[in-house]
Amino acid sequence: MRIDLNSDLGEGFGPWTMGDDAAMLSLVSSANVACGFHAGDPQIMRATIAMAAARGVAVGAHPGYHDLSGFGRRPVAGLTLREIENLVAYQIGAFAAICALEGQPMRHVKTHGALGNACAVDDDLADAIARAIRAAAPDAAFMTMPGAATDRAADRAGLRQIREIYADRTYGEDFNLSPRSQPGAVIHDPAHALTRAMEMVAEGRIRSVGGKDLRVPIDSICVHGDTPAAVTMTRMLREGLEAAGWQVAPPHAGNG
Amino acid sequence: MRIDLNSDLGEGFGPWTMGDDAAMLSLVSSANVACGFHAGDPQIMRATIAMAAARGVAVGAHPGYHDLSGFGRRPVAGLTLREIENLVAYQIGAFAAICALEGQPMRHVKTHGALGNACAVDDDLADAIARAIRAAAPDAAFMTMPGAATDRAADRAGLRQIREIYADRTYGEDFNLSPRSQPGAVIHDPAHALTRAMEMVAEGRIRSVGGKDLRVPIDSICVHGDTPAAVTMTRMLREGLEAAGWQVAPPHAGNG
Amino acid sequence: MRIDLNSDLGEGFGPWTMGDDAAMLSLVSSANVACGFHAGDPQIMRATIAMAAARGVAVGAHPGYHDLSGFGRRPVAGLTLREIENLVAYQIGAFAAICALEGQPMRHVKTHGALGNACAVDDDLADAIARAIRAAAPDAAFMTMPGAATDRAADRAGLRQIREIYADRTYGEDFNLSPRSQPGAVIHDPAHALTRAMEMVAEGRIRSVGGKDLRVPIDSICVHGDTPAAVTMTRMLREGLEAAGWQVAPPHAGNG
Amino acid sequence: MRIDLNSDLGEGFGPWTMGDDAAMLSLVSSANVACGFHAGDPQIMRATIAMAAARGVAVGAHPGYHDLSGFGRRPVAGLTLREIENLVAYQIGAFAAICALEGQPMRHVKTHGALGNACAVDDDLADAIARAIRAAAPDAAFMTMPGAATDRAADRAGLRQIREIYADRTYGEDFNLSPRSQPGAVIHDPAHALTRAMEMVAEGRIRSVGGKDLRVPIDSICVHGDTPAAVTMTRMLREGLEAAGWQVAPPHAGNG
Repeated sequence: MRIDLNSDLGEGFGPWTMGDDAAMLSLVSSANVACGFHAGDPQIMRATIAMAAARGVAVGAHPGYHDLSGFGRRPVAGLTLREIENLVAYQIGAFAAICALEGQPMRHVKTHGALGNACAVDDDLADAIARAIRAAAPDAAFMTMPGAATDRAADRAGLRQIREIYADRTYGEDFNLSPRSQPGAVIHDPAHALTRAMEMVAEGRIRSVGGKDLRVPIDSICVHGDTPAAVTMTRMLREGLEAAGWQVAPPHAGNG
Repeated sequence: MRIDLNSDLGEGFGPWTMGDDAAMLSLVSSANVACGFHAGDPQIMRATIAMAAARGVAVGAHPGYHDLSGFGRRPVAGLTLREIENLVAYQIGAFAAICALEGQPMRHVKTHGALGNACAVDDDLADAIARAIRAAAPDAAFMTMPGAATDRAADRAGLRQIREIYADRTYGEDFNLSPRSQPGAVIHDPAHALTRAMEMVAEGRIRSVGGKDLRVPIDSICVHGDTPAAVTMTRMLREGLEAAGWQVAPPHAGNG
Repeated sequence: MRIDLNSDLGEGFGPWTMGDDAAMLSLVSSANVACGFHAGDPQIMRATIAMAAARGVAVGAHPGYHDLSGFGRRPVAGLTLREIENLVAYQIGAFAAICALEGQPMRHVKTHGALGNACAVDDDLADAIARAIRAAAPDAAFMTMPGAATDRAADRAGLRQIREIYADRTYGEDFNLSPRSQPGAVIHDPAHALTRAMEMVAEGRIRSVGGKDLRVPIDSICVHGDTPAAVTMTRMLREGLEAAGWQVAPPHAGNG
Repeated sequence: MRIDLNSDLGEGFGPWTMGDDAAMLSLVSSANVACGFHAGDPQIMRATIAMAAARGVAVGAHPGYHDLSGFGRRPVAGLTLREIENLVAYQIGAFAAICALEGQPMRHVKTHGALGNACAVDDDLADAIARAIRAAAPDAAFMTMPGAATDRAADRAGLRQIREIYADRTYGEDFNLSPRSQPGAVIHDPAHALTRAMEMVAEGRIRSVGGKDLRVPIDSICVHGDTPAAVTMTRMLREGLEAAGWQVAPPHAGNG
């Protein structure tokens, strides 16, 4: 009866902030921390790691494309697999070093934005990312979506996985997220999202919009914190999970 | 009778190259590789590490200020010691991860340009850099100038050192390099530079322009490769050292 | 009985925002718009210009050092005067072109942050900036602080000036702003700031903390909008000015 | 009997150089100068403009995607037409301001790399670029490829054109350049390239590999200078043109 809540944090840059990291760090158990390519910088990385450590929140690297002005959300064409390896390893290594300054372990790696979208559906790309993790952070888990290319790549590379679901999104027949443009793809009602998430976690399955089931152990629920409404939904989700007897904790934590 | 030759390499960026890295890698035994902040990028870092490994050349991180357009040569004011720690750790960690992709160890850390100048004369700054190395690469040596603040900081931090001299520069009474603006500060005659370097290394001392001596074991000679003339001078230095019975090899190498 | 209120706006970058530009644009009559080097990007520049135009607010370029992560607030050493000319002209020209896309004139140029501090006290630097304005935007006014190096440089270059004061800051004996570190240097009481500003504008003089007077026509009052409190103070200032019979309008506007 | 030779110049960045600009500026009559987004910086822009002016070479802006590490050669997806307008106008305006510092007129605009490839085949994109030129530099010519989307966009926008051909490339049936991957697409024999170019210019037609002709007045020949071989080919082209009685001069120049 234990489940992880993860969120993308440390997404400011220089003088700019994004979201309410302090509020989110009191709600989640894992933080995916931007590594300076799409957001984040060495100072923000360190401050986020320190804040997370003070609250017992696990930290992981959140590498993205090198694209500050587009926040890593624009597809980048024409990178070779070797360039992807280098891009990801560079950011993981940088993050690990900042973790070391705070005496904290890097627990996981999750890809961001357009890079995350691309590697969910491209096995070669997912393998390149898994190779980067194997080389640069062999003890870290690869946070993946069940059924995605990253899930398979983690298995091929022998990496430990943290399998995550989205509480506020529906799934297509291939168990990818339904596109946001599709009516009903985003669930705005917190109570509904909570019920869905608890069912998926308790039953260990993801159900597509067409009613197909994927049986899978679920380790983590991804939540957003970039708006006040998102923070509120996360708070309701955490309180609902705890009221139902779930313990919110990082995946690596010992049994409480 | 063994001595290291080190040079700053991998100093291109994106489509741009600088110096003749292939020529230099056949002459030196240690390469200080730019880490992406003043020069270098993940692809160039990896290619440089791979080329060095193929020639038995040791690689180390060469962190600098975040200043591509000024090549890290402009003084940067107003950074806190904590920001310096983060700046250096980030680059070291990134470099270590790219090394890991090539299965190569990171052997040392040397600071670049204006950061290198600043930490040679500022003990607090040198300590901040030593802390970053301790945290992010405790097995790497800190490449320092004998008598400089970095020399003392390495000792305080318990870091292994690679003590380097410059063959083509004279030393002031405080054993810092004489400023380039001073007449005679740069030695342009390769034969003279060779004689000087061999004397300093053989006798284990650095002599100031005023005739003062600093007794110190010398591990490495820094050479430049950014012009054809610099490559030629390095070739003469290596050949002269070998003709005099010296073995050019990285400091960590076993006795041949 | 007309006075301009100016504020630094368009200071976001990519996905990040700063301050409440919409609120400020309903209060000020001139906007100093960041040009992409310390903040701002082509999209934000255009959106800010369009929003300003819709409210009758005049726009000017707000060039700074090339330093996104430090927001242009860190001193940059070692730039030649020619490099300063190029830095400033580049940003002014870019801003003028984005203005042209919106069919709006660029009314003025004001320097940002550490560049602004440096050119207030360095006549050569101020002259370099004036040359950039002369070349790149000869019809624009140079927004200056009375008695500063920029004031003299504008006169030497034959540039029209917008002379500004700060309502919430005190002045030293050289009529530069008292350093923020000095007790009382920043006036936090809106009523006091309003009284001060109205006196300075009405009487055409700046009074130092020691009681010395500088007689000078004052064209504009600089206000800040980066915090909710700053917006509130600006609102009180505007309402106070209007209640006292002042018309808040850009300096170039015809007599109402 | 007059023809322009144009080449991409000023493609260094910070400490890095690319190609032999001095050699090329003694051979061409128009320089397309990088504007800081894919290459170039304010100092390099100014130095290139000054060198060109000293040799009577016309200068134009050469805007590209914001991508230093990829040199503007990677396709960038997801930019809106408004973002394209802003991207191009920003660079044109910046270039015009640096020209103004040197007292030189900006004669033309040519798009670079992946942006150039994209707008050659996309009418909406080409119109966005034409709008940016109309707004930011209405007196400048748009350098286009005959038959391309840019050719049509320039006409729709009422912009003066400089129609260019490539001496060393063959043309497909749609009069776009044959892809480099296609055998024979690049002509390596200087004598052959010279003959082809002179025929196209003299006869005012472009012939496809399949033998189809496009009748068009040709204003300029694009040449490359990024390798010693490219400089040599340009020299042969210029000497061949002059030997055949052609005057190499910018398109705007009066009749000699």
